[in-house]
Amino acid sequence: MKIAVCGAGAMGGRFGAMLHKSGNDITFIDTWDKHIHEINLHGLRVETLDENYYCPVKAYLPQDVSGSFDLVLFLTKAMNLESMIQSISHVIDSNTALMVLSNGLGNIENLEKYGNTSPIYAGVTLWSSELEGPGHIKITGDGNIEFQGIRNTNESLTHKLEATLNKAGLNAISSSNVVYSIWKKAAFNSVLNTYCALLDCNVGAFGSCNNAMTLATAVVSEFETISQAKAIPFNKEDVLETIAKAFDPSTSGHHYPSMHQDLKNGRKTEIDFLNGAISRFGRELNIETPTNTLLQELIHSKETLTA
Amino acid sequence: MKIAVCGAGAMGGRFGAMLHKSGNDITFIDTWDKHIHEINLHGLRVETLDENYYCPVKAYLPQDVSGSFDLVLFLTKAMNLESMIQSISHVIDSNTALMVLSNGLGNIENLEKYGNTSPIYAGVTLWSSELEGPGHIKITGDGNIEFQGIRNTNESLTHKLEATLNKAGLNAISSSNVVYSIWKKAAFNSVLNTYCALLDCNVGAFGSCNNAMTLATAVVSEFETISQAKAIPFNKEDVLETIAKAFDPSTSGHHYPSMHQDLKNGRKTEIDFLNGAISRFGRELNIETPTNTLLQELIHSKETLTA
Repeated sequence: MKIAVCGAGAMGGRFGAMLHKSGNDITFIDTWDKHIHEINLHGLRVETLDENYYCPVKAYLPQDVSGSFDLVLFLTKAMNLESMIQSISHVIDSNTALMVLSNGLGNIENLEKYGNTSPIYAGVTLWSSELEGPGHIKITGDGNIEFQGIRNTNESLTHKLEATLNKAGLNAISSSNVVYSIWKKAAFNSVLNTYCALLDCNVGAFGSCNNAMTLATAVVSEFETISQAKAIPFNKEDVLETIAKAFDPSTSGHHYPSMHQDLKNGRKTEIDFLNGAISRFGRELNIETPTNTLLQELIHSKETLTA
Repeated sequence: MKIAVCGAGAMGGRFGAMLHKSGNDITFIDTWDKHIHEINLHGLRVETLDENYYCPVKAYLPQDVSGSFDLVLFLTKAMNLESMIQSISHVIDSNTALMVLSNGLGNIENLEKYGNTSPIYAGVTLWSSELEGPGHIKITGDGNIEFQGIRNTNESLTHKLEATLNKAGLNAISSSNVVYSIWKKAAFNSVLNTYCALLDCNVGAFGSCNNAMTLATAVVSEFETISQAKAIPFNKEDVLETIAKAFDPSTSGHHYPSMHQDLKNGRKTEIDFLNGAISRFGRELNIETPTNTLLQELIHSKETLTA
């Protein structure tokens, strides 16, 4: 299958490398020149627990890519998705399946807005990976993908994509409940990413605060209110239980969420697609979301102060 | 006049030293043994721009003080006021004037609860000072005191106190609007103290965030709602203008508020008597105060994480 991976960072790099290894024709698309340059010079350097190899794939800036693709896989940060899809629109036609696995809320709407008549898939993934430097990723651990056709899709295409992802070892399942999973993951991240970034601590340290679940509940309750108004399936208790489990040092307690790392490195965060999405939906629906709105503003202040 | 200064930290130390110099009999009362010990050994070391002297005053732990006083001046942190007044109740009688100048909301209620039949005064002060170490303060700059009789007071006593404070150079004026000033200062501090502590920045850096006034308004609007429900005079625009002026580096922009310093030093903050007081009043009045409640919780988490 001819696949473009948009956003060739830690996650995109991992997906591209695994899909390349299982026989697909992979093209990376990214906006970081130095990363593109390194990949084209040596291939993408992939470090695992056992090996260290160079994955020989081509990489392009969005405006430089040409040709056509069977599948475009979006793994950009949520705030870069809109500009990415706009700037690669010249390689998308009605036969190009688009699949977004980026975190956060609002990604499906962005694909629908710019994806024309293409089949659109959305999903969530629990794979993880680290970007060590330009042209260099480190991959450990297991993961999976849950995905679902959103528009212009058919069963045969869905099965083909599922088979392709699974041949690469990506543990994909096609689901009928992906919006539930996307909102659950967004609520989870809107608690742990946001509070750990704001309080400058890891997940376990946040969990050690005796008001951690009070803080979590303030965020997740507004997710629940907005999901009800939008008729989106959501289960507050399910999210809060998953959050409480993450505090355990034997699971993810030692983890510093990506938003914490974004602030440490002076990067823009995904806040507008996490707590900020709830704030935006609240404004659209005339529902007050003071907790998520305040947290969005506080992270924006942090972005200014750490830039 | 025989005066006990409760809370002999930076501010209490300054007030005590100035009142001693103008001829009053001063007793310091504090809970920090090492500080008490140093003051009793050498006197309170007072460093100014021009001089460096030892102010020969006695200092006691609350349980060790005895005798009677014409005036007890409370300059403790708000969260220590209640236990302070309880533990010195043996030196308070109906002739002892009590005056609280501590920051925050709820201090008057604490004096009323434990002050029995004593005359009670409350006020705000713009004096400042620094505690350099045990037994050692550094005083620069100017200030003033605005105070008002709250209960069991009379004009003759009020004039006597005003004259005593002014003889010490403390620029006191007796006011008929001190509750307005206390709420204004509490709202000001609930914005600048809290956000600078949470965002780990000084006042000017907070002001440089383009959403600073959005964040400020979220806090002050809830102060306005609660003040209206309690029939307390309050002017949101006045507070917001004063906050905006404080961002200027030529005034207080370089200043790190005391709550920022409390967190840096692993100390408990005054949050429960600033944003936390609005949250408490909201619960009592069945009015939602999500912004101040969230900020109170976040600062409590910070206290846990920096302890």
